Amino acid sequence: MVAIDEGEESIYALTWCLKNLVFQNSKDHLILLYVKPPRVVYSAFDGTGYLFSSDITATMEKYSQQVADCVLEKAKIVCNDVQNVETRIENGDPRDVICQAVQKMGVDILVMGSHGYGVIKRAFLGSVSNHCAQNVKCPVLIVKKPKSTTGGDD
Amino acid sequence: MVAIDEGEESIYALTWCLKNLVFQNSKDHLILLYVKPPRVVYSAFDGTGYLFSSDITATMEKYSQQVADCVLEKAKIVCNDVQNVETRIENGDPRDVICQAVQKMGVDILVMGSHGYGVIKRAFLGSVSNHCAQNVKCPVLIVKKPKSTTGGDD
Repeated sequence: MVAIDEGEESIYALTWCLKNLVFQNSKDHLILLYVKPPRVVYSAFDGTGYLFSSDITATMEKYSQQVADCVLEKAKIVCNDVQNVETRIENGDPRDVICQAVQKMGVDILVMGSHGYGVIKRAFLGSVSNHCAQNVKCPVLIVKKPKSTTGGDD
Repeated sequence: MVAIDEGEESIYALTWCLKNLVFQNSKDHLILLYVKPPRVVYSAFDGTGYLFSSDITATMEKYSQQVADCVLEKAKIVCNDVQNVETRIENGDPRDVICQAVQKMGVDILVMGSHGYGVIKRAFLGSVSNHCAQNVKCPVLIVKKPKSTTGGDD
């Protein structure tokens, strides 16, 4: 299972694992999981304590679904050569949702970027990869995107 | 690079990565790193604040070297099929030593068990895998040994 978000790092993590992990037989199944963070995270952006109208909520919900679809479409393109790719969209706190999905689906390995779910969201959600590494029972691969992919050094 | 300690979990992690990671060409190099924790950790076992005599320190140092040799010998047996295996013994806080070694040697992936370095040592050293996952720049694979490998539960 690869946890995908809108950041480049999770696509890098996906590419890395396709290149470096052994797919042992054709029945191996790759699950791309995208988690839509809970609505409270959007509300928190506002910071004023006002409740959004149902119109705004609905628009955000639609937007969030489009982001999810687009991100997973992009990830599927990367998985071009893999036979069995399944995409899943779940709602909730990524930390809990990912850990629950891993357990429920008997995942062999969880792959994720280290800095997923954006700077602002992380301030609310805490480090997702850190939490998952500590809580899931299967092996966890945390992939970081090198900062110097284009030759720059940092 | 696989960080090896005296626990079964790091041997499990090694076995797992040999089975599931692609060794891309015969030049791929597997480094088994064992870190001897600093002497202060042994002293801390005492808990009374007494300094050990140099005799005791020397005996402990010898013992610690024997453990390191034995653990790495065991790990090498597991790597039977791999051509280029290098073993290294370093001294210091495993968290720092592992991170430094990864950077210095340009490691492609760091593999480690999640609960290494023993319960007591961890109380002093904190979680090694957690620290490394956050601080090294290469991908980190954290492998947990399933509790029910022999049918027993927990």
